[in-house]
Amino acid sequence: MSSNLQTSSTLEHLRRIESSRIFQGVVISIIILSALTIGANTYDLPPVVMGGLSGLDTAITVFFLIEILFRFAACPVKRRFFFDGWNVFDTLVVIGSLIPLDNSEAVLLGRLLRVFRVLRLVSVVPELRFLINSLLKAIPRMGYIALLMFIIFYIYAAMGSMFFASVDEELWGDVAIAMLTLFRVATFEDWTDVMYATMEQHPLSWIYYLTFIFLTAFVFLNMMIGAILEVMSEEQNAAQAQKAHDERDEIARQLAKVQEQLAILSEQMASQSERR
Amino acid sequence: MSSNLQTSSTLEHLRRIESSRIFQGVVISIIILSALTIGANTYDLPPVVMGGLSGLDTAITVFFLIEILFRFAACPVKRRFFFDGWNVFDTLVVIGSLIPLDNSEAVLLGRLLRVFRVLRLVSVVPELRFLINSLLKAIPRMGYIALLMFIIFYIYAAMGSMFFASVDEELWGDVAIAMLTLFRVATFEDWTDVMYATMEQHPLSWIYYLTFIFLTAFVFLNMMIGAILEVMSEEQNAAQAQKAHDERDEIARQLAKVQEQLAILSEQMASQSERR
Amino acid sequence: MSSNLQTSSTLEHLRRIESSRIFQGVVISIIILSALTIGANTYDLPPVVMGGLSGLDTAITVFFLIEILFRFAACPVKRRFFFDGWNVFDTLVVIGSLIPLDNSEAVLLGRLLRVFRVLRLVSVVPELRFLINSLLKAIPRMGYIALLMFIIFYIYAAMGSMFFASVDEELWGDVAIAMLTLFRVATFEDWTDVMYATMEQHPLSWIYYLTFIFLTAFVFLNMMIGAILEVMSEEQNAAQAQKAHDERDEIARQLAKVQEQLAILSEQMASQSERR
Amino acid sequence: MSSNLQTSSTLEHLRRIESSRIFQGVVISIIILSALTIGANTYDLPPVVMGGLSGLDTAITVFFLIEILFRFAACPVKRRFFFDGWNVFDTLVVIGSLIPLDNSEAVLLGRLLRVFRVLRLVSVVPELRFLINSLLKAIPRMGYIALLMFIIFYIYAAMGSMFFASVDEELWGDVAIAMLTLFRVATFEDWTDVMYATMEQHPLSWIYYLTFIFLTAFVFLNMMIGAILEVMSEEQNAAQAQKAHDERDEIARQLAKVQEQLAILSEQMASQSERR
Repeated sequence: MSSNLQTSSTLEHLRRIESSRIFQGVVISIIILSALTIGANTYDLPPVVMGGLSGLDTAITVFFLIEILFRFAACPVKRRFFFDGWNVFDTLVVIGSLIPLDNSEAVLLGRLLRVFRVLRLVSVVPELRFLINSLLKAIPRMGYIALLMFIIFYIYAAMGSMFFASVDEELWGDVAIAMLTLFRVATFEDWTDVMYATMEQHPLSWIYYLTFIFLTAFVFLNMMIGAILEVMSEEQNAAQAQKAHDERDEIARQLAKVQEQLAILSEQMASQSERR
Repeated sequence: MSSNLQTSSTLEHLRRIESSRIFQGVVISIIILSALTIGANTYDLPPVVMGGLSGLDTAITVFFLIEILFRFAACPVKRRFFFDGWNVFDTLVVIGSLIPLDNSEAVLLGRLLRVFRVLRLVSVVPELRFLINSLLKAIPRMGYIALLMFIIFYIYAAMGSMFFASVDEELWGDVAIAMLTLFRVATFEDWTDVMYATMEQHPLSWIYYLTFIFLTAFVFLNMMIGAILEVMSEEQNAAQAQKAHDERDEIARQLAKVQEQLAILSEQMASQSERR
Repeated sequence: MSSNLQTSSTLEHLRRIESSRIFQGVVISIIILSALTIGANTYDLPPVVMGGLSGLDTAITVFFLIEILFRFAACPVKRRFFFDGWNVFDTLVVIGSLIPLDNSEAVLLGRLLRVFRVLRLVSVVPELRFLINSLLKAIPRMGYIALLMFIIFYIYAAMGSMFFASVDEELWGDVAIAMLTLFRVATFEDWTDVMYATMEQHPLSWIYYLTFIFLTAFVFLNMMIGAILEVMSEEQNAAQAQKAHDERDEIARQLAKVQEQLAILSEQMASQSERR
Repeated sequence: MSSNLQTSSTLEHLRRIESSRIFQGVVISIIILSALTIGANTYDLPPVVMGGLSGLDTAITVFFLIEILFRFAACPVKRRFFFDGWNVFDTLVVIGSLIPLDNSEAVLLGRLLRVFRVLRLVSVVPELRFLINSLLKAIPRMGYIALLMFIIFYIYAAMGSMFFASVDEELWGDVAIAMLTLFRVATFEDWTDVMYATMEQHPLSWIYYLTFIFLTAFVFLNMMIGAILEVMSEEQNAAQAQKAHDERDEIARQLAKVQEQLAILSEQMASQSERR
């Protein structure tokens, strides 16, 4: 039991260090340093600097490994550590960084996983974590609209590759390429070049493009309006419920006083009748 | 009468099957399979696979025919079946699929109608049906703005083909081509190329393009704002009416209690006076 | 006096004709016919059809002249006729159409004024007139933002023509051309081509483009948000004032009843005291 | 003390001049004149006009110097003059204009500072000053979103320069150039050209572009919605708090009357009991 207490106080100590401003600051600094080394690696540098960067990279990897072990040690219930998605993400990124960069085949994968270390900034800064969480919450409400968009793209892509494959194999060859071409049209990127090419063989094909642009723009516009309204009505409902509650409280308190006064009056009257 | 009852119970049985999760799931799976075969047809495939796809297509067509007949049979009042726009749409798509693909002339029409089978996903998934219905509701409120936009496009197109037809016959040849060119300008797609070409002959033609872009952007912006506000005020009115009603109810109930208490008091007093 | 009365009844008669559905329908049809002839004139047509269009144009001009005279006659107070901007606009367009198309110099002006006859659709259809009026109302609230935008464009254009005039005389020659180039950059139209060209001589010029894009996008975004909020708060204030009024009315009525009951009670009590 | 009084009355006099409409009008006119000379300098003009512009420039510089000294003199507490950011900005711009234009090295800097004199329009017109202040207020609320955007850009740029540097050194050479290329992709400016080039070596690289476009568009959309909502809820809270207050006041006043009446009743009753 005394050992248990000691562990508990050690835990407490570790957690106090973990949540201290200095510890947070050091971790954020190291992540930014890690991001800078990743950026520096994309430049052509003299071998000496490259060697220094490689050494720095090893040091950062070791630091991150120690940090994640420290945070795991500071966690009171070990099993719950991996219940938090951010912890899992951090662990995977750090383990991924352990892949040695010498092996020529895994070198790209190792460098790619080092890039994701920048994302650790999101998991460490609480404001960014909050932002990401609220963005993730916005995804489901766009689910069915996304499905509808996909159906529109798929139908137009199927039609496009049916009619226009003979015009330009590279743009309309099959349904997958046609969907990429349609996404290009939806971003207005040189879409008239695509249209003019097909209009030479199919003079009425402008109908295809215009209906597609109107449909996607219309659905997108309504999606945006819908998203604004949904979030707004949620916030408003919360605010109004609070406000309505406050107001009702105020009036109810006054009405209760009136009822009290009336009850006293009624009692007074009753006592009068009795006394008589 | 017993036959009637029996029919009714059969109907009930059919409808229970129709609205069952398994039936819905099977139909959705077949629609997705149908969409995949349409997509697969756009690739260059070996003849064996093409033959398999053709057989699959026939099977899907037969399945859809049986499904629509089944749903018709499950409909209690046969006449009402075609009152629902979605049923009419489904029937047309299925009948269209019956056109044989061998006839070289109708082959494209047949394939086109097969593409619309993907849209059946919308008619089967209730959430998508709801989404489409709410999008259709948004169309009338944009009617007069669309008319105004068309008038702006028409006037600018008439002016454009008047002044610029000599510059580039392919962009400004007649009013219809000019409208297409203006739509291109409105999407900012290589609009400066169009402008620089006309500015060589008409140095002040930048006024034409800038006023057009400002006008369309301004009308579009106001349309968007209008759409947001309209939907919002609708929802808000409904929400506030409900809220106001709830609040009034609460206060009214309390005030009614006060009035009751007062009535009792008044009665007490009256009985006092009488007794004396 | 009898003449006066007769005039008044004639006026009444004229106005009834003017506001009748048939009259409105005929005018709208003629305007659309006028728009179609303008559009048809942009095509290469055989001389016979051209002659027919010319005759139709004369007929339409005469019809519009009669219509405007009729509406002037139907106006009870002649002076007020020109107080309405739409009437002034209609009159100018119709008078402009009287310019003969034979004179080779004025022919373009005459045709241009004929194009504006399409705009008469706006002045005749009440819904479009209402729409335009509400759009015009939105202009002043964007005034100072537009001025700020102009200042940003002017400063960047002055800087641009200072530094980049040596790179491309046609894009940055003087402050006016530079503003047009910046408008092109603001619409993202081949802006990287412009940037890459200047970056060859001034490697840091990407700062110029990025700050410009961020500034204009940021100001534009805030303008849009401001516009949405302003219109919204206006509508909301109106709606809430109405709602608050309704609610207060309801509660005030009930409170008044309570006060009445109390007054009766008080009187009863007073009469009791007196009687005793 | 008499000297002090005299100074105070002189100050009062100066301030009355400074805030007079005529003084403001003259300053605004001179600023616009200054903007016009800057614009005129970008044109190729005959030497005579250039000389005139140079003289005008000197006159404007002197005027601005006198104006700023005048405003400093009119300021009651001299130290506070530089507490206002606008005053500091004005002073810096005016001092910067004193750099002689003859020195060939400083000539560009001098001309650049002259351009910023146009910005003095913002510091002089109160409506523009108010607009800028409200725009500055909008910056912090976009801070973390901007950081998130930067992280997304940085990660994609690092990945891009890792994989695509061999495809096009000029677009993906290092992380900085890659970020500029990604900004170009985010504005949809010829982004398909960039994609098609990399797809030749990495056929799956469309995933890179599509995820990037979706991520940035999604974050941007949510930022816009967030900004609209935040400003709106602020305004609404203020408006509703006011409204709720007004309503409560009205009802509370009426309830207070009821309580008063009840108190009188209670007193009447008490006096009755006592009298008896």
